[in-house]
Amino acid sequence: MRSRILILVLFSMLVPKLPAQEGPFGLMPVPASVQAGEGHLLITPSFAVAVTGNTEVRLQHAVEIFTAHLHDETGMLPNEVSLTDASKATLVIRTEAISRDVQEPGEDESYDLDITSSRATLSAPNTLGAMRGLETFLQLLEVTREGFAIPVVRIHDQPRFPWRGLMIDVSRHFIPLDVLKRNLDGMAAVKMNVFHWHLSDDQGFRVESKRYPNLTQMGSGGLYYTQEEVRELIAYARDRGIRVVPEFDMPGHTTAWFAGYPELASAPGTYTPATTWGIFDAAMDPTKESTYRFLDEFIGEMAKLFPDPYFHIGGDEVNGKQWDANPRIQGFMHLHGLKNDADLQTYFTKRVQEIVHRHGKIMIGWDEVLHPDLPKNVVVQSWRGQASLADAARQGYRGLLSYGYYLDLMWPAARHYAVDPLGDGASDLNAEQRTRVLGGEACMWSEYVSPENIDSRIWPRTAVIAERLWSAPAVQDVASMYERMEIVRRRLDFLGLTHDSAYPRMLRRIAGSDNAGPVRVLTDVVEPVKDYAREELATVPATSATPLNRVVDAARPESLTAREFSQMVDAFVAGKADQAMQAKMRSWLTSWRDNPSKLEALAAKSFLLPEVMPMAKNLSALAAGGLEAMDDISEHKTAPADWAKEQVALAEQAKQPQAQVLLMVAEPIEKLLQAAGGSQPAGN
Amino acid sequence: MRSRILILVLFSMLVPKLPAQEGPFGLMPVPASVQAGEGHLLITPSFAVAVTGNTEVRLQHAVEIFTAHLHDETGMLPNEVSLTDASKATLVIRTEAISRDVQEPGEDESYDLDITSSRATLSAPNTLGAMRGLETFLQLLEVTREGFAIPVVRIHDQPRFPWRGLMIDVSRHFIPLDVLKRNLDGMAAVKMNVFHWHLSDDQGFRVESKRYPNLTQMGSGGLYYTQEEVRELIAYARDRGIRVVPEFDMPGHTTAWFAGYPELASAPGTYTPATTWGIFDAAMDPTKESTYRFLDEFIGEMAKLFPDPYFHIGGDEVNGKQWDANPRIQGFMHLHGLKNDADLQTYFTKRVQEIVHRHGKIMIGWDEVLHPDLPKNVVVQSWRGQASLADAARQGYRGLLSYGYYLDLMWPAARHYAVDPLGDGASDLNAEQRTRVLGGEACMWSEYVSPENIDSRIWPRTAVIAERLWSAPAVQDVASMYERMEIVRRRLDFLGLTHDSAYPRMLRRIAGSDNAGPVRVLTDVVEPVKDYAREELATVPATSATPLNRVVDAARPESLTAREFSQMVDAFVAGKADQAMQAKMRSWLTSWRDNPSKLEALAAKSFLLPEVMPMAKNLSALAAGGLEAMDDISEHKTAPADWAKEQVALAEQAKQPQAQVLLMVAEPIEKLLQAAGGSQPAGN
Repeated sequence: MRSRILILVLFSMLVPKLPAQEGPFGLMPVPASVQAGEGHLLITPSFAVAVTGNTEVRLQHAVEIFTAHLHDETGMLPNEVSLTDASKATLVIRTEAISRDVQEPGEDESYDLDITSSRATLSAPNTLGAMRGLETFLQLLEVTREGFAIPVVRIHDQPRFPWRGLMIDVSRHFIPLDVLKRNLDGMAAVKMNVFHWHLSDDQGFRVESKRYPNLTQMGSGGLYYTQEEVRELIAYARDRGIRVVPEFDMPGHTTAWFAGYPELASAPGTYTPATTWGIFDAAMDPTKESTYRFLDEFIGEMAKLFPDPYFHIGGDEVNGKQWDANPRIQGFMHLHGLKNDADLQTYFTKRVQEIVHRHGKIMIGWDEVLHPDLPKNVVVQSWRGQASLADAARQGYRGLLSYGYYLDLMWPAARHYAVDPLGDGASDLNAEQRTRVLGGEACMWSEYVSPENIDSRIWPRTAVIAERLWSAPAVQDVASMYERMEIVRRRLDFLGLTHDSAYPRMLRRIAGSDNAGPVRVLTDVVEPVKDYAREELATVPATSATPLNRVVDAARPESLTAREFSQMVDAFVAGKADQAMQAKMRSWLTSWRDNPSKLEALAAKSFLLPEVMPMAKNLSALAAGGLEAMDDISEHKTAPADWAKEQVALAEQAKQPQAQVLLMVAEPIEKLLQAAGGSQPAGN
Repeated sequence: MRSRILILVLFSMLVPKLPAQEGPFGLMPVPASVQAGEGHLLITPSFAVAVTGNTEVRLQHAVEIFTAHLHDETGMLPNEVSLTDASKATLVIRTEAISRDVQEPGEDESYDLDITSSRATLSAPNTLGAMRGLETFLQLLEVTREGFAIPVVRIHDQPRFPWRGLMIDVSRHFIPLDVLKRNLDGMAAVKMNVFHWHLSDDQGFRVESKRYPNLTQMGSGGLYYTQEEVRELIAYARDRGIRVVPEFDMPGHTTAWFAGYPELASAPGTYTPATTWGIFDAAMDPTKESTYRFLDEFIGEMAKLFPDPYFHIGGDEVNGKQWDANPRIQGFMHLHGLKNDADLQTYFTKRVQEIVHRHGKIMIGWDEVLHPDLPKNVVVQSWRGQASLADAARQGYRGLLSYGYYLDLMWPAARHYAVDPLGDGASDLNAEQRTRVLGGEACMWSEYVSPENIDSRIWPRTAVIAERLWSAPAVQDVASMYERMEIVRRRLDFLGLTHDSAYPRMLRRIAGSDNAGPVRVLTDVVEPVKDYAREELATVPATSATPLNRVVDAARPESLTAREFSQMVDAFVAGKADQAMQAKMRSWLTSWRDNPSKLEALAAKSFLLPEVMPMAKNLSALAAGGLEAMDDISEHKTAPADWAKEQVALAEQAKQPQAQVLLMVAEPIEKLLQAAGGSQPAGN
């Protein structure tokens, strides 16, 4: 299932649309084997699909979803020839067997796609593989002079890892069902297969329990999913080949439970869901049998609601303060020889694991749950890194990597792309141990996401994590990744994801005007601060009611303008920038230089702008210097040393975060300034 | 209910955001009375609504919808203080009575909105008025230096006409439920109150009948609404103060019925739903009692499904050919003294009216149904014009105007805006007769709309029709209308309507590339051909399966770029264009002149572009001439007569439609050329 070698045979020219360096046909994730031919298969309004071999309702749904997406992308309209017999079909799907009633990790997802100029044939062992192949088919679609077309190609494909997930935290900010659904569409488009639903945390309990109604009545502020909605989402996911794994975080991250059931807590008192972020003291009382009776009934109810064989109990970040402060708990620990809070948590975890097991599920937990006493089928999800994952694998546990895949840390795509579940600390595992690394999950913690901007945090970066988990480890070309990520970004827009479309709306709001151009000029070149710096830099601590409507909330996690500008600067400094490139650099520098006065006019009328004015002015000053530097370099003059030094100091200052955003073009402009001053840019 | 005088008192300065000529605060429709004060009410995350006086679930839903929209527009997040007691509320709603169980035309929609710097109070006789006031509140929202705010103002408002509708034809192209829902959101935003659902026509029967399942099983191609979906839409509409009036067109426009029930037809044979457009021969047999038994059961079923007191039976465009060709029908006519097809249709209409009446409904039909024998409560919807409406009113019938409001004719907003239900042929009605003119309906016939582009045909133009039907007749300022329509356009984007967001997607598809700039340069200045010219100019007749993905399908009904350019040309020719305006004109002319080579590069790879290349080249040639003309005029030189004549001839040619679109800047450029040649532009 793992470590397959990429077989990439290119018989003939690729289609003109995509230069070779973009990877085969812009596909993301890159398939295991691609054999390109010549010519193409035209996709016309009489396009029809035939399903032969085994059929099941799920495959029929998959074909309907595929057809709808094909229509969305082409503008073709629904007609009655979409399901027909093989002799008349444009696309024939052959599956050998139906898929399992409940999708499981490791279920065969392979497929073969054979496109000739007259017919497309998709063969797969089961419906799951057919679903993956249909997504590849859609990614192959292109506009040609003759019409919509799929290039002639033979693809054999299968995933490297069986567990390729996306976790969404719906507790810190509630994320409505329709937003989740469109994100499931995005997941399916890049062949991800696990939606990990982080359903409870200190800030909110988000799923209806009929046995314990106060969980949502008192712990959700009215923002939760009914059981009917949960079933709806699971069915939606299943139709896209995606498992749904629920997480109920315990014994910590449980403040919201205690609003309705304070008797579960380790300290007396009344509780209300948290409205701020961080690690809270509230923790379940692991010493009371009533806690386990509650969890037995609750987990029993949820085990029925969620069909997936895996059940996530969280287990992270218990600070133990409530345990330490409770004499009865301390007495229990003494009595049972539990030396510290970690031992007490292990005691709890084992008890909960027994409950989870009794209800027919396999337990998953974050790193902290790992203990040699647990049965070997427990799965560990690591936010600590590959070494932690490797430790678990050596002990016989299966694991998932999430370290390196935290979307809320606002890393550039390339940084996520470089993280391999079997890399770094896991690179010396033996073959058997390696099979225990099931894959990984991108994690969207939701302190700073709303239904409006969550898509822009998840997409398109999650697509490159999906590629890391699906494609061969040798697929590493970062330039190709970025080019293909751009293609995926546009396709996801057709699927209804709002990562692109919400951006101009948010900028117009910030501008307080339909003419948001000056706001865009600035926001295009900034990024939210990285890691947990947003917390550290907050002048007023954010709460769950803080509007997410500032420049930091609109700015993309990765500025592609800054990335492109940086590459142009490198080329220019190396004397390799042609006239068009230089013109584009000057055009950008000029727009940055001239921006503050335009922005000032808007800022006079919008409370959302003054905080970024200092950065706009820094950018303006830097850009003015950058233009001078370009002149000097072009004329082979060395700028005066004083001037260059002063400008570089300005650039250094401009790199400091302001309004919780970073000016991403400060560094490339600094390179220009250094080059104009005659010094070698650092680290170049 | 009608002809109220606009009372518009402006005590003090308007907010700086909007100059006075934009109308009060950019509201659309303009309220009956606006009394502006100074200062504003801040809208913060602790914003809370209190409902006092009468309450009902519908009002609670209205407040929830309002709050969600407020969150969408501000980026504020849901919290638990949204419904509270009056002393803590930012907005207090007081209604005197609940609304009627089934909304009726003429039900009071008035409201008073009183905003002070500390509190907003919305008073209304019932929930309907409160809904309208909440929409006004949302339209008042602005971004200020202090935060989101509502200006201090007192508004009294009520509609001029009680029936302000939008008809959507879901037969020629099926429009899914979610698309209808977002259009209902748009209607509510501009205070429209009737959704007229054109549910059957030759091309498809779109609503499930349990009594006659073959209507959809054989007449819909699988594209129809279940009864549950119908109920869902009606509830959705009701929560927005919108009635749902179903239309089942008969006796013509009935091919789709006959696919499942050929015995209803006036000619034997098998039928399949039409896939092309126009008037078809198929018509119900008005001479058979079995037809009326069928309709009795069918209308009985639908009368229960649709609670509205009105029931639309169509009645338009029967060509009578099947009747003329059927000797039995001819014999029946002879026997009953029916002299012609019109008489036979009247016989049918009377029979159907009796059925509709028996099932507790009031019949509506298009102009053709009108006959003095019909009871006076029948409502006539006129596609023929105000004179036809006035005739009906004089005879004692109530009527609705749709002439002048056909969105599929691709008229500019100003042309719709100028059409008044009580204007032209209805202007000499007496007071009593005028009360019989209930209002009007915008009509979206769907030959050339898909779920992708329908919003761009309906919005924002429907907003100006909504204003015509709500606001005082004296509200006529076209410049103000266009400025406010732009504001509404952006707000509708926040509501999820895709009139704006689908445009770049469609252009990217046409370009076959993410770099669709050159396609946009052209498409921004073209419009689809007007009236029914698209039919006439078709080289291959369109069918319901023809993809709607061409430039003509993406182009907006009204090019605002062309409108703005035309105004600038007028100013320039009059010597009143400042430097900035001249620079913008030159910038546009230059981009048009230089566009063909860029477009050519894309056209080499996209089958959707070659058809518009000739127009792009015409535009280029014209723009080159336009630039020369600007030089000449600026330098007070007269261009050589030969040159000017040749250029004007080119412009005349460029006005001809190509690829079913019109080049909307040909005329203003022609004005420039004429001015350069020393001649007075025609009609200027």
